[in-house]
Amino acid sequence: MSAPTNRSLARPTDDAPHVDSAQLLSVLAEISRIGARTGAGITRTGLGPEEAQARAYLAERYRREGLAARTDPAGNLIVRRREADPAKPVLLLGSHVDTVVHGGRLDGTYGVVAACEVVRVLARQGMESAYEPVAVAFSNEEGARFPYPFFGSLGLTGQLDIACATTMTDRDGTALSTALRAAGGDLDMIEAAAWPDGSIAGYLELHIEQGPVLEDRNIPIGVVEAITGRTIIDITVQGVQGHAGTTPMSLRRDALVAAAQVVLAVQRLATTRGLCAVSTVGCLDGEPNVTNVIPGMVRLTAEIRDGRAERLRAAERALVAELSALGSATGTRIDMDLRPVTRPTQTDHRLREAVATAADDLGLTHLEMFSGAGHDAQIVARSAPIGMVFVPSRGGISHAPQEHTDDDLLVAGADTLLHAALRLVTERW
Amino acid sequence: MSAPTNRSLARPTDDAPHVDSAQLLSVLAEISRIGARTGAGITRTGLGPEEAQARAYLAERYRREGLAARTDPAGNLIVRRREADPAKPVLLLGSHVDTVVHGGRLDGTYGVVAACEVVRVLARQGMESAYEPVAVAFSNEEGARFPYPFFGSLGLTGQLDIACATTMTDRDGTALSTALRAAGGDLDMIEAAAWPDGSIAGYLELHIEQGPVLEDRNIPIGVVEAITGRTIIDITVQGVQGHAGTTPMSLRRDALVAAAQVVLAVQRLATTRGLCAVSTVGCLDGEPNVTNVIPGMVRLTAEIRDGRAERLRAAERALVAELSALGSATGTRIDMDLRPVTRPTQTDHRLREAVATAADDLGLTHLEMFSGAGHDAQIVARSAPIGMVFVPSRGGISHAPQEHTDDDLLVAGADTLLHAALRLVTERW
Repeated sequence: MSAPTNRSLARPTDDAPHVDSAQLLSVLAEISRIGARTGAGITRTGLGPEEAQARAYLAERYRREGLAARTDPAGNLIVRRREADPAKPVLLLGSHVDTVVHGGRLDGTYGVVAACEVVRVLARQGMESAYEPVAVAFSNEEGARFPYPFFGSLGLTGQLDIACATTMTDRDGTALSTALRAAGGDLDMIEAAAWPDGSIAGYLELHIEQGPVLEDRNIPIGVVEAITGRTIIDITVQGVQGHAGTTPMSLRRDALVAAAQVVLAVQRLATTRGLCAVSTVGCLDGEPNVTNVIPGMVRLTAEIRDGRAERLRAAERALVAELSALGSATGTRIDMDLRPVTRPTQTDHRLREAVATAADDLGLTHLEMFSGAGHDAQIVARSAPIGMVFVPSRGGISHAPQEHTDDDLLVAGADTLLHAALRLVTERW
Repeated sequence: MSAPTNRSLARPTDDAPHVDSAQLLSVLAEISRIGARTGAGITRTGLGPEEAQARAYLAERYRREGLAARTDPAGNLIVRRREADPAKPVLLLGSHVDTVVHGGRLDGTYGVVAACEVVRVLARQGMESAYEPVAVAFSNEEGARFPYPFFGSLGLTGQLDIACATTMTDRDGTALSTALRAAGGDLDMIEAAAWPDGSIAGYLELHIEQGPVLEDRNIPIGVVEAITGRTIIDITVQGVQGHAGTTPMSLRRDALVAAAQVVLAVQRLATTRGLCAVSTVGCLDGEPNVTNVIPGMVRLTAEIRDGRAERLRAAERALVAELSALGSATGTRIDMDLRPVTRPTQTDHRLREAVATAADDLGLTHLEMFSGAGHDAQIVARSAPIGMVFVPSRGGISHAPQEHTDDDLLVAGADTLLHAALRLVTERW
């Protein structure tokens, strides 16, 4: 049972369609047993037997509902109407069912189950549509076992590096190709997983927020403006090691004192300077890291994220300039290595509007926001317009057994996905 | 050969006594072979066979010069005139011959060899004296193998905790008592190592500076005003761990951002605030220390040193107040555990004056300064007035194979010790 809240999520009494909330929650409960470890969350890593089992469970479940379900050569589960015209452009709905090690029950899986439910409800409506609603469970989004994250969405959009996939193994030496075959895919046939250009009219992904914003503001629905790009900056501060008792302050080149200023400079990028959405130093290691020795070297890893490429570049430039000056001011040498990890990805205004209108129709407040985490939608965005819907994450926690969203919010998110999809498939855009 | 410098250390041509510079340097060279590892400095840890071998070498060498040499039950080597009146108060001169692991050839050993040379020269002078000059090599000053540093000076001054020594072992499980016996001492007889109250008129220790001050100012002799006291502060910063991409800056309680401010607050104690001589954060460990996670907890170790107890206390109070405020300001919890390690130890004005006058007599410039490192003199100070003489350390480096002082400076330091001792033994004070 969820604790009572001050939310008002009473479902409208009109005759608008709704997902079957009992079915949504029971499918989520069933699937969360697959890969569950007592007290240690769920470990259902991509391209492994548990992910395949989750797909098989969903396929079986929705075949019983009259839908077609198949696994493609990239290990993606595709669920659609049996009678669908294969030439009709698709409104793709989905996410992934793989998890990190000791993950939660909602990250990815919630969006897949909701997508299947939406396709089921729309199929029952039997109305004329311009686009065919199709649900997808992309394989290996997390890359927890085989370090090729977004494997399934890259495969479906024809962006996989096949040579890289061919030589990849997990830590135990098992080849990705072997694991993929055991999971129902086929690396030799991988090109057949790629959909033709223009076949995806749009992609909509429902996901837990994985952050605290919606919970903090007590808003049930997030409409994602952009998935932030991310740059990692490896920083080395080289000072001079020395005796902490005998080296006067005036003669020191303390690498940790300089590194502390680096930490604060990184933080200011997103706070007082407002140059990017978030900026963080997560990792700091000093040498020799001994009580009575002035640190001679410190290695830090900073990362900055923003939804706009030009802002990310500006924040990078500002940091480089500030740390160069800081090196001179502290008598240390500060080296930086910038690694752009992902580029910012904008969502499409038509999909955003469809989600916002759906929320309005359902009487749900919504917030335009950024996604700080990466999603399959980023990959699909290179081939088709995308949109994303968020529901709150309790405590902002994800990738952990404590991951949780109240049932009423899960149903509200799925209903928003349904109404947005209904609007998108019936009107040509 | 030493590189030419702009120092003028020409020895006066008067008939004042001098140490035998060739003998001083050759004894230092001989002893530095004991425990030497090719390319890895000298490892001659306290109460071990190499320390005993170094003592045996010195005993043999100075017996040949007509002096008496014995090892006491605490493993200290005592070198004095054979004909000395055992009831005459002693001017004790010395240091230690044990090293850290991979140490240098001068730390401790230089002061012992110079002390033996001084006793030898004074014995040859054959003049009337109020105090008997005696050289000592204290055992296990470093505590590198058996973690009971200052073992010998504590034993000689009757301050050893015998119960603690009785149960102590090294990492391999060898008892301290067993090692001490093998090295010529005897824990069962340890009380016999303690000298009677009043038997030490004064103690003078010659040592390399282990810091960069004298070299930086091109001054050959340091006259130590005080050995600084040291307080270690264990600091824990408890924040809230979170996703570095999805947690907005405004909702963060980043333990590393707070810890960076702790590092700078510690540094300011000795720089802009001028509250203590030196202040350092040597050690910092964050959790989980992963690129894309906001650090939830950081542990730091700070240390502050000063030559005056009241200043050390004031600096401690200032840090506690500042970190308490910082915890509130950053939304983190900052816990502090203060551990006073050593109290500041003042040198005696008469011994300082004797050293300064000796340097003047020899035409050597000198600087009054603090010792940031710990020395046997701190221990002896509880029983007798102390003084210390420093010579420069190249690059301020010690406890490392690179430890070095030019030969002319080593000779200048030994001559200063000789002249100071000559002044101190002939005038009753």
